[in-house]
Amino acid sequence: MGGSGYAGGEFLRLALGHPNLEVTQVTSERNANTPVSLVHPNLRGRTNLKFRKAADLDGADIVVLALPHNSAAKRIAEFEAKGKTLVDLSADFRLKDPEVYRAVYGEDHPAPEKLKDWVYGNPELHREDLRGATRIACAGCFATSVILALYPVLKLGALAPKDIIATGLVGSSAAGASSSDSSHHPERAGSLRVYKPVGHRHGAEAQQELPGNFPLHLTAISTPRVRGILTTVQAWVPDGWSERDVWSAYREVYGAEPFIRIVKVARGLHRYPDPMLLDGTNYCDIGFEMDQDTGRVVLMSAIDNLVKGTAGHAIQSLNIANGWEETTGLEFTGLHPA
Amino acid sequence: MGGSGYAGGEFLRLALGHPNLEVTQVTSERNANTPVSLVHPNLRGRTNLKFRKAADLDGADIVVLALPHNSAAKRIAEFEAKGKTLVDLSADFRLKDPEVYRAVYGEDHPAPEKLKDWVYGNPELHREDLRGATRIACAGCFATSVILALYPVLKLGALAPKDIIATGLVGSSAAGASSSDSSHHPERAGSLRVYKPVGHRHGAEAQQELPGNFPLHLTAISTPRVRGILTTVQAWVPDGWSERDVWSAYREVYGAEPFIRIVKVARGLHRYPDPMLLDGTNYCDIGFEMDQDTGRVVLMSAIDNLVKGTAGHAIQSLNIANGWEETTGLEFTGLHPA
Amino acid sequence: MGGSGYAGGEFLRLALGHPNLEVTQVTSERNANTPVSLVHPNLRGRTNLKFRKAADLDGADIVVLALPHNSAAKRIAEFEAKGKTLVDLSADFRLKDPEVYRAVYGEDHPAPEKLKDWVYGNPELHREDLRGATRIACAGCFATSVILALYPVLKLGALAPKDIIATGLVGSSAAGASSSDSSHHPERAGSLRVYKPVGHRHGAEAQQELPGNFPLHLTAISTPRVRGILTTVQAWVPDGWSERDVWSAYREVYGAEPFIRIVKVARGLHRYPDPMLLDGTNYCDIGFEMDQDTGRVVLMSAIDNLVKGTAGHAIQSLNIANGWEETTGLEFTGLHPA
Amino acid sequence: MGGSGYAGGEFLRLALGHPNLEVTQVTSERNANTPVSLVHPNLRGRTNLKFRKAADLDGADIVVLALPHNSAAKRIAEFEAKGKTLVDLSADFRLKDPEVYRAVYGEDHPAPEKLKDWVYGNPELHREDLRGATRIACAGCFATSVILALYPVLKLGALAPKDIIATGLVGSSAAGASSSDSSHHPERAGSLRVYKPVGHRHGAEAQQELPGNFPLHLTAISTPRVRGILTTVQAWVPDGWSERDVWSAYREVYGAEPFIRIVKVARGLHRYPDPMLLDGTNYCDIGFEMDQDTGRVVLMSAIDNLVKGTAGHAIQSLNIANGWEETTGLEFTGLHPA
Repeated sequence: MGGSGYAGGEFLRLALGHPNLEVTQVTSERNANTPVSLVHPNLRGRTNLKFRKAADLDGADIVVLALPHNSAAKRIAEFEAKGKTLVDLSADFRLKDPEVYRAVYGEDHPAPEKLKDWVYGNPELHREDLRGATRIACAGCFATSVILALYPVLKLGALAPKDIIATGLVGSSAAGASSSDSSHHPERAGSLRVYKPVGHRHGAEAQQELPGNFPLHLTAISTPRVRGILTTVQAWVPDGWSERDVWSAYREVYGAEPFIRIVKVARGLHRYPDPMLLDGTNYCDIGFEMDQDTGRVVLMSAIDNLVKGTAGHAIQSLNIANGWEETTGLEFTGLHPA
Repeated sequence: MGGSGYAGGEFLRLALGHPNLEVTQVTSERNANTPVSLVHPNLRGRTNLKFRKAADLDGADIVVLALPHNSAAKRIAEFEAKGKTLVDLSADFRLKDPEVYRAVYGEDHPAPEKLKDWVYGNPELHREDLRGATRIACAGCFATSVILALYPVLKLGALAPKDIIATGLVGSSAAGASSSDSSHHPERAGSLRVYKPVGHRHGAEAQQELPGNFPLHLTAISTPRVRGILTTVQAWVPDGWSERDVWSAYREVYGAEPFIRIVKVARGLHRYPDPMLLDGTNYCDIGFEMDQDTGRVVLMSAIDNLVKGTAGHAIQSLNIANGWEETTGLEFTGLHPA
Repeated sequence: MGGSGYAGGEFLRLALGHPNLEVTQVTSERNANTPVSLVHPNLRGRTNLKFRKAADLDGADIVVLALPHNSAAKRIAEFEAKGKTLVDLSADFRLKDPEVYRAVYGEDHPAPEKLKDWVYGNPELHREDLRGATRIACAGCFATSVILALYPVLKLGALAPKDIIATGLVGSSAAGASSSDSSHHPERAGSLRVYKPVGHRHGAEAQQELPGNFPLHLTAISTPRVRGILTTVQAWVPDGWSERDVWSAYREVYGAEPFIRIVKVARGLHRYPDPMLLDGTNYCDIGFEMDQDTGRVVLMSAIDNLVKGTAGHAIQSLNIANGWEETTGLEFTGLHPA
Repeated sequence: MGGSGYAGGEFLRLALGHPNLEVTQVTSERNANTPVSLVHPNLRGRTNLKFRKAADLDGADIVVLALPHNSAAKRIAEFEAKGKTLVDLSADFRLKDPEVYRAVYGEDHPAPEKLKDWVYGNPELHREDLRGATRIACAGCFATSVILALYPVLKLGALAPKDIIATGLVGSSAAGASSSDSSHHPERAGSLRVYKPVGHRHGAEAQQELPGNFPLHLTAISTPRVRGILTTVQAWVPDGWSERDVWSAYREVYGAEPFIRIVKVARGLHRYPDPMLLDGTNYCDIGFEMDQDTGRVVLMSAIDNLVKGTAGHAIQSLNIANGWEETTGLEFTGLHPA
């Protein structure tokens, strides 16, 4: 549903290459009857499907919702009638508490009684909940980069109870496929634009998902990249803790994760996570560095916002939900140079 | 008139720094009552002017028309009543022959009887005509890069009578300040897009202005730059001619030009013209290289499309028209690195 | 052999994901004992191999030579002793005529008696020769973009006997993995640099491979992209021929090609080939447009220079040589947006 | 001295356009006898000077030192003999305390007895000290962006006594004109690279110059821009303070500053500082935004690292030192689009 945007297009790319998935229908009201590959030109030669209107949708085993914010929740009954499993790429079913939803999105949730049915689609935190799940609310992209950087160290007590500040550097694809003044190439190509110094909505997702009760602050800055998020998190270790303890926390929690790589190399160019290396991949690379004098630790995470931040996350969650090998369809290594 | 676009904004930047010009009014229907510096943020602290509606325009010594194609010609009587000198940055008064205009723009010229009043605003070719001129039709940006590369060699017979092919690599600002699907950053940032393989309208301008009667072909490709045009022209010298003859032609014709630099260096990085070095400047850099085996010569020109291709050209023409030092207000050197 | 450069790294990426290939050894004199994934950080988690010195190389079924120009030919006896099948990514065995080699590279070929053993590694032209081949000389990247754009129209007589001009817009990875003044980011990021207006060495490859005897001229320009080549070819159809004939030529010759897509769409953003869409893929996208008034036709081709221009070409050739499905290991679709 | 680097080149650009300065000599050991405009191609047509060796330097009223770190201090007696006024663009004379210098740079200061002679070249903080000064140690670029963002709010008590965190996004020109693996275009063009998560040397400069005694933490990230620094500072206002108080602090301290603009606009694209608009200018744009729920304030500053961060700062300081109009030679407005 809503397959003409970037999130929908990326899901299509991954689903068309997934051995256990068959894409039978794609909807777009605006592009009905247009070949999918005209809108997503990377799919030329990969699919002959045309967009259809939502009203023409036949049932399916899995229905993926890639609609604008607040659309999925309003029409949830319609979608539940169409498919056994629903995957929502929007923000509609991520927050569990309708009060928080109202505070963040400024309106009442259209279907609060449904919220409890949905699993927050972050495999690293909710793998067990995802097994057999039929309602998957994919995590937000900036939220994912923050959550994955912080989860192990918060869970294992490796951070002091001080303010935590996350600064996200975000590519232009995060704002979607519709052109606007702010996405106009001459205004964006050379820009470093603070677009959300305070009040980013993904803060609520991170607060919900992360252990403990600490002040978390987000700042988001747009960069000239198209894809990718690099998040740096500023925090402090407790007295007496060392960088080695931070390393242990990541190793203990993420040691077996197929899509998380700890990147902390003593030499060479690629010493920390860099979204440059992740375009098209489902990896979340994580690094860190500690200031010995002050106990400040800088945590870093990098993802492709459209893959690990959206559609890859969704595929990974579907793989778990269906009992398939977790990495199926997500094997792309990434390019270098890129 | 129409000061909210990129051509208008660039003219404003230059005019505000010009000792003999005073900017008294700027119009924009869409932005009426908005401070100019909100739309052109580089002018913060340089002007307190607000946009006004065209209907509110008072008379002025010079009226600069930075309107969409075909607007200036349709309303020419209105503008003639407002100012003694008119400078048009659009294509409306560039072509002298209404038949050619109709063939190129697909409609009748709205004021064909006025065409003879206008000087084609290319100082290198029309300096004498510009002295005292009160109607200046600024040359097109791609046309300028083609004309300036070819004029000396055609004038002095340094090219054989074969097809001439000009390939222009163009930045995104050439498409103007309005956002569109093709200017959407994620679609444009990494793109090398052939947007006009054949049929570019500036071919008619170049044919009109260049000596001789030869087949001239244009191809235009958009690049990830914001400003700038790099044009390579493929041509052939007559039998027995050498690269030295080409050099002589440029030197003879352009030897005293204040804004043309011949760039042909034997070593180093910057051996030929490169628009990277020209952002904000009024220079047209010109280079060339000959294939000894075949007599093929590659002519190259680089400009900033908004300066030497539009607003700088206009200022230079105004300087000549008014008897001012030709370089006044156009002293910016350009940046390196950039 | 020589696995620390970009061509070698790209071959590694593809080979590690290829079900019929097992990478057992990688050499690099400079990086001996260093993990491969430190030099090619996209391979983190994909291989634990370390570079070894060439002297320590054990035998292998296939030996891939990714050495600087002229190295493979000088040491060819050494490499023939190491592996049954040799694939050379350099220029050493592409030209069949030692005289041409001398003219192009300025020195005698080190092993002219071996030249006849090698198949020019362009699957579209030499598929039959490649079956069972054990010496594969991968085609050059710019040559590939020129050859694939021209082969069908020349073969089927769709071009008039006039000069043909190919202009290649090339990304920075084509110059290799070693830093230099010309690759310094501040000098390259905004540059449009004509680096080879005349005399590009790949002209000889194209002349060798293309049918007919016509003057072919190349100009190469570096762009701010990292990967990719966009080539525009300026040519003329014979009198009486139409764009439809051009289309027929491509369809007849390339109709069954798995990695060639004809891209010529009447509407939308993506009407012609664009390297933006091809990073990491083995596609060559081909388009064209004809000027009805003059018979000029602009042919366009786009490739990823490191894949279809180098390592993907090599894998495709190996697939053919070994009787494997031709697309094996080359399934990556490409990203959009990118 | 040392005029072939980016800082030296930028000083030359500004000095050649300065009505009160005459550039008589430029040194570069590596480029001796080479025309300056071959190394700084933007100066083509602006100067015929050639580089000379330092040993051939004649005396001058003003000697500008653009040498690598630690060179100026070691040879300070030599330079004092050459000119009445010395301007150092390196870090050698910025820190007043030799112990701090040793801690930061890991070696003893070569001329600690000279440190007291030098004025820290930040006009906004040291305007009075600069009048008549003959030893000017230009402030570091990242330090400048941090200091100018924080000075008014610290001076007027508008920040709570909590950790302050500054994150700087830096362009590639900050690493200088020499190519290296980390500046290789294919490795840098798409990169967001945390190059100094902790321990940036400019922290000591900021600590020295800023009022109060608070913990200040720096993180530096390289971006795909060539010029420019965008710094975001995370801090907290004291209980009961509002964003209006922050605004008052900036207005009170910077109200008359010619090169500081407060950029905080309610609508449009350009609501906060953006280095995109500052290339080539001497402006420092400053903005801020407060989170009403937490008292967190995000301060933002943007500069061109080579102008307000280096050479423009130097010119501004020289203007003050010599009693010239402070903006002389620094009138360039900046480009939009850019």
